[in-house]
Amino acid sequence: MNDPSTICAISTPPGTGGIAVIRISGEHAFNIVSTVFTPYKSGIQLREQQGGSFFVGSLHADNQDIDEVVVTLFKSPHSYTGEDVVEISCHGSIFIQQQILQVLLGKGARLAKPGEFTQRAFLNGKMDLSQAEAVADLIASTTAASHKIALSQMRGGFSEEIRKLREELLKFTALIELELDFSEEEVEFADRAALKELVNRIETLIHTLLDSFRLGNAIKNGIPVAIVGETNVGKSTLLNALLNEEKAIVSEIHGTTRDVIEDVVNIHGTAFRFFDTAGIRETSDEIESLGIERTFSKLRQAEIVLLVVDLTYPAPTLLDMIEKIRNIVDNQHLIIVANKADKQLSETAESLRSLPLRSNEDLVFIAAKGKQNLDELILRMQETLAVNKVGSNDIVVSNVRHYEALRNAHEAILRVQSGLTTHISGDFLSQDIRECLHYLSDIIGEVTNHEVLGFIFKNFCIGK
Amino acid sequence: MNDPSTICAISTPPGTGGIAVIRISGEHAFNIVSTVFTPYKSGIQLREQQGGSFFVGSLHADNQDIDEVVVTLFKSPHSYTGEDVVEISCHGSIFIQQQILQVLLGKGARLAKPGEFTQRAFLNGKMDLSQAEAVADLIASTTAASHKIALSQMRGGFSEEIRKLREELLKFTALIELELDFSEEEVEFADRAALKELVNRIETLIHTLLDSFRLGNAIKNGIPVAIVGETNVGKSTLLNALLNEEKAIVSEIHGTTRDVIEDVVNIHGTAFRFFDTAGIRETSDEIESLGIERTFSKLRQAEIVLLVVDLTYPAPTLLDMIEKIRNIVDNQHLIIVANKADKQLSETAESLRSLPLRSNEDLVFIAAKGKQNLDELILRMQETLAVNKVGSNDIVVSNVRHYEALRNAHEAILRVQSGLTTHISGDFLSQDIRECLHYLSDIIGEVTNHEVLGFIFKNFCIGK
Repeated sequence: MNDPSTICAISTPPGTGGIAVIRISGEHAFNIVSTVFTPYKSGIQLREQQGGSFFVGSLHADNQDIDEVVVTLFKSPHSYTGEDVVEISCHGSIFIQQQILQVLLGKGARLAKPGEFTQRAFLNGKMDLSQAEAVADLIASTTAASHKIALSQMRGGFSEEIRKLREELLKFTALIELELDFSEEEVEFADRAALKELVNRIETLIHTLLDSFRLGNAIKNGIPVAIVGETNVGKSTLLNALLNEEKAIVSEIHGTTRDVIEDVVNIHGTAFRFFDTAGIRETSDEIESLGIERTFSKLRQAEIVLLVVDLTYPAPTLLDMIEKIRNIVDNQHLIIVANKADKQLSETAESLRSLPLRSNEDLVFIAAKGKQNLDELILRMQETLAVNKVGSNDIVVSNVRHYEALRNAHEAILRVQSGLTTHISGDFLSQDIRECLHYLSDIIGEVTNHEVLGFIFKNFCIGK
Repeated sequence: MNDPSTICAISTPPGTGGIAVIRISGEHAFNIVSTVFTPYKSGIQLREQQGGSFFVGSLHADNQDIDEVVVTLFKSPHSYTGEDVVEISCHGSIFIQQQILQVLLGKGARLAKPGEFTQRAFLNGKMDLSQAEAVADLIASTTAASHKIALSQMRGGFSEEIRKLREELLKFTALIELELDFSEEEVEFADRAALKELVNRIETLIHTLLDSFRLGNAIKNGIPVAIVGETNVGKSTLLNALLNEEKAIVSEIHGTTRDVIEDVVNIHGTAFRFFDTAGIRETSDEIESLGIERTFSKLRQAEIVLLVVDLTYPAPTLLDMIEKIRNIVDNQHLIIVANKADKQLSETAESLRSLPLRSNEDLVFIAAKGKQNLDELILRMQETLAVNKVGSNDIVVSNVRHYEALRNAHEAILRVQSGLTTHISGDFLSQDIRECLHYLSDIIGEVTNHEVLGFIFKNFCIGK
């Protein structure tokens, strides 16, 4: 499976800068660099050097100097890829970077494919697959929250959890399979009550990891926040105020439906993905009804629902709307955003204040146009987030591939659970456990096939 | 003059990549990094380490891990700046790069100004000013030719030349000033013939360097090539063919005059700056005359003139035009480009073939529209270039500041030359020599004031 060729690539971001780094990995890395690099310190033979050292010198083609560089040597297995690795730190001109790459290719290295350095690190056992995937997540992370998850995953926190699950399962399967060996005698080595307890524990663990995906995915792609309310109560004004306030729009994604626009904003280290939705009102217009149905659907996907109400409206209208939304929200946190609080306060405000709030609800008075009290709204939004309750040792699943594998593992363990209740034979139990083990192993790359690997690493940047 | 603060910056190109490098330089570099970096190898105290070593470990803020990094130590004076320098190689996410920078700033480093690392290298005597300037040129170089000049200059080839000049001048001035001490006695220690010979040699040296600027500047900004000829003979078609052929437009500069468009193209490692000019024809229209006068002026600034003629025209018209351009070209190389050579060949082609060519002239038959024989045209253009005759040890001045200083030095040495002829007093001679010395010293930064330094380094990128 391992490719013996020596690979090279520019590892620093593309473009011009003070310095750039070109990385070479493979059996011939030291040899190739030694033919194009002359250290200033005389008497140094690069190919005889140990790893853990670096040299200043001249990098040259056969008949022409290219640059003055620093060459750092990493000896197998003490390198990122586990192979011999050389890093060439040169002046950051695009021309020089290209020239050095050309010279290395001319000497027998080949251009690395995206993620190939990390892929080799995985294949050489320097990290498992979930850690390798976390490297790409780490590089792509743009907020404190997603960075935290990726770093913890790269360091193997998640793998540790998977390994624990596997151990528990192996214990279980050993007992079951022991019984199979003595099946003629109908003995039960494993105490069924203890077994059930063990399977329940495993199921809970997998369930917890699965549950964390909702959060992990939200952190990775932005916590979904739906802004709902009647037409003309200031929803768009609020969204604009939030966007402008923070001046840190990460990206602007146009929703699949034409009338839902998404904006991802980084607020104090967490990405929020805002959906501005069509106004909700009673309507007999069929097309408008469709738009409102879409609003409800978006609302159900949200983590936080901001229900904007207009304080200048009569109280019953507001309370009516609140009741309507309360009937739709489920797991979501509902923040009732009472807008236009800078206007002379009516009895509407009083009615709202006396409204009994549920545990998943908040009430905030703002003036979107004048940007008043937005800080409190942001504070409420952040307080509701599970991300802030995630400790640095908690495991959060944020990768879709891992989520799918966990789902399959979960289905298998549920079959084991029901099998224990219905007293199915040890053969079937064992088969389901093996299936569960397979999916868990897939996460850390122990049974992952070549095609899946190719798919995973092709999304990396070149040079990593 | 030296600033005791510790500076830091992202040194790799801006953006996302596999890895990025953050550089810290100054008295507290080791200390600052040691408070935010924990090596994986236990028992390592960063601040006690020698230079020339590197460590893998965790980079962290006070209460939060940021990344796994490689930290490389360079101990004063064995570093780029001559100070203690630490390079932190981290994962190339923008978020991580910014976080690390923030942490370093929080620990007392300050953000480096553009070119400040190189400025410190200069102030600490690691390189002279002309070498420091060459670092920026090296990073900005986009062609083999400009890269070659910058690398040679960074390595001190130019400085060596200036130092030689200064030595010669000092020899001279010592003799003159010795005579001054004995002026009462009217002795002449210095043999006037030998002195003249020495001054002539110095003048020739400076003159050669000044002359090289035309080439150096052309290499840096693109060899200026004027495309001239009557209207509708295929000038624009030729230009487009050359541009498309190479598919490597470096940039598109709109000339100061509205009707001259410049295109810089990198052809086999040399940048050519093409001017497409207004068609030349006899005209009584005053405005059109102005346009043509402008064409002539551009033509005089060119290094190479491509005179495009149309083979389907009668021979006398063509020969007339060639004669007209011959009267304008001076130092330029004139290539007569006979276009539409794919048409049935007339006696016009025969007349052209029998035209006696001068040493600075070439004749090439092409068909611009069908892109026929463009290779030969490009070959002719390249052969004419002095750049190809520049050896790796030849000095080429490409910096405007150096050119100005050399011009001033040259004026001073010319006054010395004429002073020797007219037997002016040693006082005056000495004064002119001192002035010449001053300008030469300015090039390598020995007498350069703070303001000029600021101006030079502000054009660097941050992190270099």
